[in-house]
Amino acid sequence: MAAVDEVMSKGRLEAFSDGVFAIATTLLILDVTVPPGSGAHLAHALVKEWPAYLAYTTSFLTIAVIWVNHHAMFSKVTYADRRLVFTNAVFLATVAFIPFPTRLLAEYIRGPDGARTAAIFYGLTFVVLSVIFNLTWRAIAIDRRLVRDDVPQSELKAIFRSFRPGIPMYFGATLVAFVSPVASAFLYLAIAVFYALPADLVTRVQR
Amino acid sequence: MAAVDEVMSKGRLEAFSDGVFAIATTLLILDVTVPPGSGAHLAHALVKEWPAYLAYTTSFLTIAVIWVNHHAMFSKVTYADRRLVFTNAVFLATVAFIPFPTRLLAEYIRGPDGARTAAIFYGLTFVVLSVIFNLTWRAIAIDRRLVRDDVPQSELKAIFRSFRPGIPMYFGATLVAFVSPVASAFLYLAIAVFYALPADLVTRVQR
Amino acid sequence: MAAVDEVMSKGRLEAFSDGVFAIATTLLILDVTVPPGSGAHLAHALVKEWPAYLAYTTSFLTIAVIWVNHHAMFSKVTYADRRLVFTNAVFLATVAFIPFPTRLLAEYIRGPDGARTAAIFYGLTFVVLSVIFNLTWRAIAIDRRLVRDDVPQSELKAIFRSFRPGIPMYFGATLVAFVSPVASAFLYLAIAVFYALPADLVTRVQR
Amino acid sequence: MAAVDEVMSKGRLEAFSDGVFAIATTLLILDVTVPPGSGAHLAHALVKEWPAYLAYTTSFLTIAVIWVNHHAMFSKVTYADRRLVFTNAVFLATVAFIPFPTRLLAEYIRGPDGARTAAIFYGLTFVVLSVIFNLTWRAIAIDRRLVRDDVPQSELKAIFRSFRPGIPMYFGATLVAFVSPVASAFLYLAIAVFYALPADLVTRVQR
Repeated sequence: MAAVDEVMSKGRLEAFSDGVFAIATTLLILDVTVPPGSGAHLAHALVKEWPAYLAYTTSFLTIAVIWVNHHAMFSKVTYADRRLVFTNAVFLATVAFIPFPTRLLAEYIRGPDGARTAAIFYGLTFVVLSVIFNLTWRAIAIDRRLVRDDVPQSELKAIFRSFRPGIPMYFGATLVAFVSPVASAFLYLAIAVFYALPADLVTRVQR
Repeated sequence: MAAVDEVMSKGRLEAFSDGVFAIATTLLILDVTVPPGSGAHLAHALVKEWPAYLAYTTSFLTIAVIWVNHHAMFSKVTYADRRLVFTNAVFLATVAFIPFPTRLLAEYIRGPDGARTAAIFYGLTFVVLSVIFNLTWRAIAIDRRLVRDDVPQSELKAIFRSFRPGIPMYFGATLVAFVSPVASAFLYLAIAVFYALPADLVTRVQR
Repeated sequence: MAAVDEVMSKGRLEAFSDGVFAIATTLLILDVTVPPGSGAHLAHALVKEWPAYLAYTTSFLTIAVIWVNHHAMFSKVTYADRRLVFTNAVFLATVAFIPFPTRLLAEYIRGPDGARTAAIFYGLTFVVLSVIFNLTWRAIAIDRRLVRDDVPQSELKAIFRSFRPGIPMYFGATLVAFVSPVASAFLYLAIAVFYALPADLVTRVQR
Repeated sequence: MAAVDEVMSKGRLEAFSDGVFAIATTLLILDVTVPPGSGAHLAHALVKEWPAYLAYTTSFLTIAVIWVNHHAMFSKVTYADRRLVFTNAVFLATVAFIPFPTRLLAEYIRGPDGARTAAIFYGLTFVVLSVIFNLTWRAIAIDRRLVRDDVPQSELKAIFRSFRPGIPMYFGATLVAFVSPVASAFLYLAIAVFYALPADLVTRVQR
């Protein structure tokens, strides 16, 4: 099987991407569990699972934010070429990877051991994801490669600008994990909430 | 990655939501199992799994009902804005959460321990889901925010009215769990069946 | 949440159904495993897993056949009403249930214990599925309830006729399981292959 | 249930296929884990999981390549007939099978035992997949069975030619597994990267 060199309608690329987004979010629940035989103290076991709920909520909301941005990004595209298709594939592979660091965060953040490593690994995943997200956007927008003619240059610049804080924010939160893994875990959630807030509020904060 | 502030076509939002609904229902079967090494008494082991079948059926049918309502709700929408997108994301996170309380109900309802907690936790999930479902509807219909012009106000009112019994019904069934977890489990199924019944019959019952 | 009484476009119902079909088939692989620590005799362990491959192939192909029939059925539909939506939901719940009997068949068909039960349970699942499939078709075609005007009555009759052998065939194969579970397992595969064969050949055989 | 003999719109066949592709890739992450209780040496445990990351990346990228080719293939199709539908179903069953050899490769490639078998089994899966992929293409293109009228014969020939190296490449990499399982594992990744590279580069290499 050799990839035939042909442009691809962005519709099917979006559909495939949406599928990966939807499945990656929905699989997260498989890692929310109580230890077997928790019957005698189930209420207590459920409360003790707060890191699993925190990790679930953070990853779900973050993937939702990424999905919204992915949609905004692709709304500027005319068609997909090989470079976009495979950059997007690497991007999706990273999105689909999220359940793994999520599971680690849920399991080890309580400590005593592994909390720091789990929190750093989670943060680094999103640093990498931010980088690849930017590469995907560059595969679309650099030299207006695949941008629709009717999209003004100012809009592209606004998107470039809006993507800028992602990497430093996740990098900063990852650094916090060295001092306090639990604090960084809440920071990851805060970043997702920050992005989900109305844009005008976000703009005000960024200034 | 910063969420670009842009309205989203409701088509892609529906597609993403449908994906989460379809996956959440289909994942439910992963938690229907017999204990390892049940070979010597497999028929007996299968019969003993009745709580798993009950939980599976209840959650599947309930998600189907929610999916139908979600569809009815979105059929009134013109386009999605940021508030709807993220309220809907929180709503979907709750739908995708359902396999967890389902698994607990299946595992612990037989008792002797944990049956009450599992049944209450299951019910509370659906109380919360009902609340968030209402918030999603409000993100659409309050002040006709995102409602299509041709939808008469009376229709919106009918939907508001039809959503009203959800919270008290699930709350009531959850209260029953304090007395009899098994009874509440069957009540949860009954609520789903009640909603799946033809609307005219439902209306008659509600009067 | 009360289901609003509204017809649903068949497009979204098909999309949801296709999602459940695609996920149910793809989840089947999760139950194909070798025992932990099979390293020293991995080739042997892989060969010993033949019942898992047989069960995987049978269930995958059978779901593909059902999917094709589901498509053929819905190609006659104008729109979906509540009865069709919820009959279809029960149908999908049965499709999504398939990984469970598949897993049992794979695990217990080698015996010594549980082979008969597993093979009967697998067959009964498909007997029930055939019954519900027929009910779904009746929700569409009885009195031409939801049938497009341009579909000739003869075509509906042909479909009714083509669905007829499903229940007795699966019932027969299930009876064989009492005598030889392994033989019935191969019969289940044969039924799927029989349905996948070109229709003119099938018609010739049926005569 | 008997498959009604009817042509199927390729749209729904593509949607179903895309679903299987998206789910098969996203399920891969479920097999990326660290052993339970790795807390005290989590960083070390994460590094030791390199075969899991390698297997994940290889399978994800390979499925993405297959998906692109599947899309290119179906872009030539007018409509689907029974032969294409069921050849495609067998093809999808093989795609959905990939998580199993991926899991084995991740688990056993480190050895000491089972590395060779796991690497050979992985390679053979893709040899078989390449064969079935070619059969699917033949169901479309032989005698222009289902090819759109406006597709020039030269384009079909180019596709036939581009599919040719798949089988020998995977067969060769599988043979390498007899000597060095780890080398073959990296070869499998190299093949996927080779296919993801721009076509003009690939063509130059093939000459």
